[in-house]
Amino acid sequence: MNTVKVRKTEELEAEQLGAHIGEIVRLHGSIYKIRKMSSFAFVLLRTKRQMVQCVYEPAYARFALEELKEEACVRFTAEVIREERSRSGYDLHLLEVEILSEPEEVSPVVINQKRVNTSIENLLDYRPITLRNEKERAVFQIQARICQAFREFLDGQHFTEIHTPKLVAAGAEGGANIFSLSYFGEQAYLAQSPQFYKQMMVGVFERVYEIAPVFRAEKHDTARHLNEYTSVDFEIGYIENFEDIMAMEQEMLRCTFARLQETCGAELSLLKAEVPVITEIPRIRFSEAKELVSCVYKRAFSEKLDFEPEEEKLLCEYVKKTTGSDFVFVTHYPSAKRPFYAMDSRENPAVTESFDLLFRGLEVTTGGQRIHNYREQMEKIESRGMHVEAFESYLMMHRCGMPPHGGLGLGLERFTARLLGFENVRNASLFPRDIHRLIP
Amino acid sequence: MNTVKVRKTEELEAEQLGAHIGEIVRLHGSIYKIRKMSSFAFVLLRTKRQMVQCVYEPAYARFALEELKEEACVRFTAEVIREERSRSGYDLHLLEVEILSEPEEVSPVVINQKRVNTSIENLLDYRPITLRNEKERAVFQIQARICQAFREFLDGQHFTEIHTPKLVAAGAEGGANIFSLSYFGEQAYLAQSPQFYKQMMVGVFERVYEIAPVFRAEKHDTARHLNEYTSVDFEIGYIENFEDIMAMEQEMLRCTFARLQETCGAELSLLKAEVPVITEIPRIRFSEAKELVSCVYKRAFSEKLDFEPEEEKLLCEYVKKTTGSDFVFVTHYPSAKRPFYAMDSRENPAVTESFDLLFRGLEVTTGGQRIHNYREQMEKIESRGMHVEAFESYLMMHRCGMPPHGGLGLGLERFTARLLGFENVRNASLFPRDIHRLIP
Repeated sequence: MNTVKVRKTEELEAEQLGAHIGEIVRLHGSIYKIRKMSSFAFVLLRTKRQMVQCVYEPAYARFALEELKEEACVRFTAEVIREERSRSGYDLHLLEVEILSEPEEVSPVVINQKRVNTSIENLLDYRPITLRNEKERAVFQIQARICQAFREFLDGQHFTEIHTPKLVAAGAEGGANIFSLSYFGEQAYLAQSPQFYKQMMVGVFERVYEIAPVFRAEKHDTARHLNEYTSVDFEIGYIENFEDIMAMEQEMLRCTFARLQETCGAELSLLKAEVPVITEIPRIRFSEAKELVSCVYKRAFSEKLDFEPEEEKLLCEYVKKTTGSDFVFVTHYPSAKRPFYAMDSRENPAVTESFDLLFRGLEVTTGGQRIHNYREQMEKIESRGMHVEAFESYLMMHRCGMPPHGGLGLGLERFTARLLGFENVRNASLFPRDIHRLIP
Repeated sequence: MNTVKVRKTEELEAEQLGAHIGEIVRLHGSIYKIRKMSSFAFVLLRTKRQMVQCVYEPAYARFALEELKEEACVRFTAEVIREERSRSGYDLHLLEVEILSEPEEVSPVVINQKRVNTSIENLLDYRPITLRNEKERAVFQIQARICQAFREFLDGQHFTEIHTPKLVAAGAEGGANIFSLSYFGEQAYLAQSPQFYKQMMVGVFERVYEIAPVFRAEKHDTARHLNEYTSVDFEIGYIENFEDIMAMEQEMLRCTFARLQETCGAELSLLKAEVPVITEIPRIRFSEAKELVSCVYKRAFSEKLDFEPEEEKLLCEYVKKTTGSDFVFVTHYPSAKRPFYAMDSRENPAVTESFDLLFRGLEVTTGGQRIHNYREQMEKIESRGMHVEAFESYLMMHRCGMPPHGGLGLGLERFTARLLGFENVRNASLFPRDIHRLIP
């Protein structure tokens, strides 16, 4: 019986080139752009992470420039020549090419300019191609590094990663914003959050996290809503109060921003992203924040139990101006606007032991302490006129003993968008889902 | 404006106790088990990962043993006493207790014995509680470490992690095994795999991976099927042929098993798991494997284009006996049984450049090379009588240029189950979904 042959490749990663000056190397990639000059040409090769500039000169190359097409996949043989004037310290002189595949047609959108110069609709319609643009793909390289940094931090804090079901029998967040489907003759829903399951798992591992899709059937057609997004959820047992959750998030963000500078400095500077420096995130009560915005910005005081988007923006503007912080924790949201599992404040049961985190004008996190006592939870369910039967397996954990606990959910796309300064959250989703978009 | 207060905890992690012999420490957890002896008692505390054995003696303790209930959440003050006879090298003498919460009732299933001694139905019905059992939770600690090791390996191989949509307009794997739902008046489906999207992303990042839920509306009611499972998908560009994919998987598994020994040795030995040693995984063509099983085990030759479960078991048995390997790659599956994107073999178009990986009798991975040439893909779609319109955005990448590429999908639950020797894949899913089960 044969075994697997492991191919010994002699090809280099783009990152290694500088260590091979004076040598002949092989490397592969897609031809991103051909720029003809008077007597030579620049050929930009798109590799896994870097765009590598190659020089085509008829004097050296053993092939005709016309053999190269943009978006063809090739393997080059090239010489790495020391060149002090080049930013990389070397030039890459093309010697030979092996054409691995060629496009059938030219892309319907120009993708190899500084940015893809088209409408957001086109950008998304042609997503499989427009993502090949240097800046577009940098967004998702950064997003990958954000997740990596989150996991690194949480693993270091003794969290256990979990995988909870997305097909569920009841919604955790209440309301009508839930997708339903038929499941072998039963009614099933798509999970709006892993809320119930992550709480159950606190009873098992004390600290758990999950980075996974969630689904919201919201009919909002705004720049900040997606109907499917990636939720970064964590949940912690044995907390003193909900400040422990905020402290954990603050530290997670601090570590993440530091790691991003190390792992994707090139992408961040390409996108001119200003990475926040976190020392201590300011906090303000919801009711105070409402008053403050009304007072400072001379707005009619809105009685609503939640922020209007404009209020979130103004609050952040004010916080930035007065403290320098890009973030602000808003605490003690009204009980009436929070789910049945939120813990009410002892001193004022009309508000909850909860918080949102606003980042440059937008809510990116919702969190808080949950009710862990069975009777307290039952009372709240009953006082809301909810049906206990639907939550039987959820309440099992309260009945059998749970530590004081809480957690949060952070929207990965919103977070990425605010970090990179995008007005539209769709720009931070590979293949966004909204009320008009299911393709590609 | 206030800022977040970071609480300075003086509590220890269980893992640190050995470094504090002779000291008074504080630590928290759930009381897993109280074992009364003649003049003292053992109190087993369930912490994040470890069960910590504490000793209650009336002479030292400043509280009554009766204050402690199983599944109560507590904070202990205790003295770490050197004790050569103890496996840990110390005893933990309880001094004080702070009761943080108490259960409302005793668990309906006994969870603090060596194993939860009940039917699989009960085990799953009471999942929020039965997962608290030491062995049950060890399974998912190991599963978390498997994902961690996979990511660590793939990150090291320059893969980029992606998040692709689970709400899709068309199925990638064909067939009727797909959940459908109404999406703002349109028909949507739940992704059976990230196939189309990960291929698109090969055109962007060359190497990508995703660990995320997939959905299969299969009516199978067997020990190896789940209707929602976690799929570990990777996809690689610039491959020579599909052997590059198998080589990458072989290396990923080798590294993963080595890491597991380091990161969860305690859990693996608790579950008496035999971790395979991978050197070179044997490989055999599908047609040869069918004949071999028929011949060696004197079975009527089944003409089917796929394995019967029994054939997979027998093949693995034979491979183990003759080569010592727990794994076997089966290659060149019939074209008729593989999806439209699978590349047919040049020398025999009736078979594909594809493989499955069998692990101890069960298929855990399906992979292969995909068609990257636009015309070749169009021909295959048309020859199958499929409608091109449904795949327009998918084919965009082929039209605009794609490298030779391929990849695989690995079922996390099946993989975990085979590693730990479980007959039923449900034992390796936190909250399994099958045709009868949507709760908890």
